[in-house]
Amino acid sequence: MTTLDRLIKNLSRLPGVGRKSAARIAYYLLRSDRTFTADLAREIGELQDRIRECSICGNYTEVEPCDICTDPRREKAVICVVEQSQDIQTIESTREYNGLFHVLLGVISPIDGIGPDDLTIAKLMKRIKETDVREIIIATNPTVEGDATAMYLVRMLSGSGVALSRLASGLPVGGDLEYADRLTLARSIKGRIPLSG
Amino acid sequence: MTTLDRLIKNLSRLPGVGRKSAARIAYYLLRSDRTFTADLAREIGELQDRIRECSICGNYTEVEPCDICTDPRREKAVICVVEQSQDIQTIESTREYNGLFHVLLGVISPIDGIGPDDLTIAKLMKRIKETDVREIIIATNPTVEGDATAMYLVRMLSGSGVALSRLASGLPVGGDLEYADRLTLARSIKGRIPLSG
Repeated sequence: MTTLDRLIKNLSRLPGVGRKSAARIAYYLLRSDRTFTADLAREIGELQDRIRECSICGNYTEVEPCDICTDPRREKAVICVVEQSQDIQTIESTREYNGLFHVLLGVISPIDGIGPDDLTIAKLMKRIKETDVREIIIATNPTVEGDATAMYLVRMLSGSGVALSRLASGLPVGGDLEYADRLTLARSIKGRIPLSG
Repeated sequence: MTTLDRLIKNLSRLPGVGRKSAARIAYYLLRSDRTFTADLAREIGELQDRIRECSICGNYTEVEPCDICTDPRREKAVICVVEQSQDIQTIESTREYNGLFHVLLGVISPIDGIGPDDLTIAKLMKRIKETDVREIIIATNPTVEGDATAMYLVRMLSGSGVALSRLASGLPVGGDLEYADRLTLARSIKGRIPLSG
């Protein structure tokens, strides 16, 4: 196998990159200026050494604890629980949330053999017990596994005196009833918002 | 800018990789096993050192001259002229061709300021003069620039005693007349193939 074939094979392992796009990327890299390929190679090689999980919330970070956990302007009494570290970036991009986070590192999924003990739920309980948390926003995905995980968390936290909520599910903004799937539409009816007037 | 942001920015410069897929790839790399990321980093970093252009045909190669130019089973009297090195892989994948190649390193494109002297046409002429070439297959793309380059080559080679041909253009196999664009259909009519019977 040639260097080029090996590179194309490895590139095609990346998510969303098929064999043809891997070849396109490889030829693009061959023609790129050397600074770019050197930078990219270094960044990929050093990535896992430079970035680790925040010991408090599980966010990917270069400093310990992460910037969000140590930011004095953040509301420390609210924790948003997400499945994966990248969900934090997605929620941050809305600029609607100013509390802390907690990364579960997955969801409960019996079919994959993943139970509550495989997630960071015990760690979340400890955080709630040891710090002054008043609200938990559950931001797991609106999937079967995300729902099961949310329900499990609700059961664990009921009676703890912490306010619980879950991200609203429903029609996407700018979407059209006609194109909404049945489950989404059903959920948007169930979760309908009362209007005053 | 964090390490992750820099990596995402650089990944999104790759062809076919937008900002969202770049983020997906970066998070995938963060979770990958270290052997994979180390291999990928090394392959990208070493690529341009290990692979160069064959001094005879211009093909990307790790050995000099390339495997195709030195293969004794190849027909040395036929040269297929392509725009880019990657076109060689595409033609090779058909297993329909057993001659040599010549990479032009581009096409004639006055709008981009690329004339015949910017391509490897002089080198092709030298190859034809110095070796026993009997046939040239022009495999430039069926585009305005590819057509212009093919016509230029025909003009340069007429009277040289070398048989000239061009890849057939027309309906894609398995395609449907209904979905063919006007130009492709026009060309498939002009280049219609006589049937005996």
